[in-house]
Amino acid sequence: MRSGSRSPAGFHGAGTSRQRCRIMTEAAPVFRRLTLIGLGLIGSSLARAVRENRLADEIVACDRADILERVARLGIADHCEADPAQAVQNADAVILCVPVGAFADMAEKIAPHLAPGCILTDVGSTKQSVIRDVGPLLPPHVHFVPGHPLAGTEYSGPESGFSTLFRDRWTLLTPPPDTAEEAIEAVSALWRGCGAQVEIMEPAHHDRVLAIVSHLPHLIAFTICGTADDLADESRQQVLKFAASGFRDFTRIAASDPTMWRDIFLNNRDALLEMLARFTEDAQAMARAVRWGDEDYIVDKIERGRRIRRNLIEINQA
Amino acid sequence: MRSGSRSPAGFHGAGTSRQRCRIMTEAAPVFRRLTLIGLGLIGSSLARAVRENRLADEIVACDRADILERVARLGIADHCEADPAQAVQNADAVILCVPVGAFADMAEKIAPHLAPGCILTDVGSTKQSVIRDVGPLLPPHVHFVPGHPLAGTEYSGPESGFSTLFRDRWTLLTPPPDTAEEAIEAVSALWRGCGAQVEIMEPAHHDRVLAIVSHLPHLIAFTICGTADDLADESRQQVLKFAASGFRDFTRIAASDPTMWRDIFLNNRDALLEMLARFTEDAQAMARAVRWGDEDYIVDKIERGRRIRRNLIEINQA
Repeated sequence: MRSGSRSPAGFHGAGTSRQRCRIMTEAAPVFRRLTLIGLGLIGSSLARAVRENRLADEIVACDRADILERVARLGIADHCEADPAQAVQNADAVILCVPVGAFADMAEKIAPHLAPGCILTDVGSTKQSVIRDVGPLLPPHVHFVPGHPLAGTEYSGPESGFSTLFRDRWTLLTPPPDTAEEAIEAVSALWRGCGAQVEIMEPAHHDRVLAIVSHLPHLIAFTICGTADDLADESRQQVLKFAASGFRDFTRIAASDPTMWRDIFLNNRDALLEMLARFTEDAQAMARAVRWGDEDYIVDKIERGRRIRRNLIEINQA
Repeated sequence: MRSGSRSPAGFHGAGTSRQRCRIMTEAAPVFRRLTLIGLGLIGSSLARAVRENRLADEIVACDRADILERVARLGIADHCEADPAQAVQNADAVILCVPVGAFADMAEKIAPHLAPGCILTDVGSTKQSVIRDVGPLLPPHVHFVPGHPLAGTEYSGPESGFSTLFRDRWTLLTPPPDTAEEAIEAVSALWRGCGAQVEIMEPAHHDRVLAIVSHLPHLIAFTICGTADDLADESRQQVLKFAASGFRDFTRIAASDPTMWRDIFLNNRDALLEMLARFTEDAQAMARAVRWGDEDYIVDKIERGRRIRRNLIEINQA
């Protein structure tokens, strides 16, 4: 890990003036040999951002052979290696970018091959499950810094990534209490180098917050698409034809990767079910107000939605 | 009504070549004196689109005095008149653009003052209620053509309108069975002149389709904002800070006008409650699948969401 080394002279040639400006404020490269396992939207965006901002000397891409062919065509990694045990050799940092349900298997494959002092981090959307599944498998000479960039689109695959995906977004890190400070700092420097802001958080708290801001909205979006799809044939055609703004926005959310979202739901089960139960109670109360014409209740709920929206705009998250 | 008259020579001066091209395919102006009652997002967008595309010789704006002051400052109407009875004098078309809950009162005020042969139409999001509330109040010499443009943003007020809001969107018309063909054609020509596609639909069918594509998504969005707002203080702050894509998209929907949405919910109660009941059953089935780890069920539901999204993209509604 070389988070302290600075060589600004190397960066003047790259990118636009905005990128250059950002780079000048960061220590880079952060890593010598960075291995990305999983080159989907997030992994391939990381590869692009790391290369563009020169955050690592070498990028190793690890995925299925057919994905690696596409990665090679895109030219976004220095080495392609289908065998995870080989891919992590001599890496000073490894980032798991596969769906969280595949983490335990993958950790088992790579753990014996991780170099002393190597940092293992990830981009999974659930954090208690990662600590449960991966933590116990790691040798004591590996630094474990679970992470989650709050960024994404509804597209999947290595072609869908782009280098600015993380710019001005948050990355949350949930390191176990005994994690070495310099490992946390190196992972933070990598994300800051990609343009993200970094915050440290308790894993349980992360999972609760993400359940309401991301996992429940996705569950709702998937569900309402199914509800529409179950309508009688003529209505279903009309739903597609006349999809007004509400439904259209929901389908955008619902277009995300099925395996990834299955794994997120199953690995954040308790927080997700709690938030869904709260939401369902609230929706039933709204239904009752609509049935009985309780105008004040309805307007109060709508006003709250607007207030939250205004708050989001004020803090620049909208 | 002058839907048959064409004077293309008058239009060559206006707008971009795309606008000019569109105008050349439409009969215009459609109306001599068009009165818009309610100059919010939709009404003020209509005023702009009608003027830009020269679809009426004169535009009369009717609203509260303070709104009319803003309309006058914007310069988007030829006359401003706060008294509805005065505003509809000599109009050959009147469009109700107030929230649907105000339709009955407004119809009562204007009905005795509508000129023989005048067309009364509207932009309300519920159509059975409009036919129920307005239809019986109209004298037989007035043509009644209920309508609903499927267009909007989360913003409100006369300043939020823009002339291209209806371009390439649908407008649904739900005329009673005995409506004069030329009245339906004139309203259709107005909307086509604003860039919209027009379709005729049964009012009950309209209300069912809109319940699932628009009204239920809005009810859900308002509700989940409230659910988040009820969380303990620290979590609520984090929800705002880390609003990931799902929640952020929901709050955009939830920022819409409270009075308008209260009226929509109350005036499409039966269809909305039926769709909410279907959705709730489906969400409970999903919750059960998450609780018991039924991977196939979860993936199947997510795949359906993606399929619907793909269909939407194919038919250009996404």
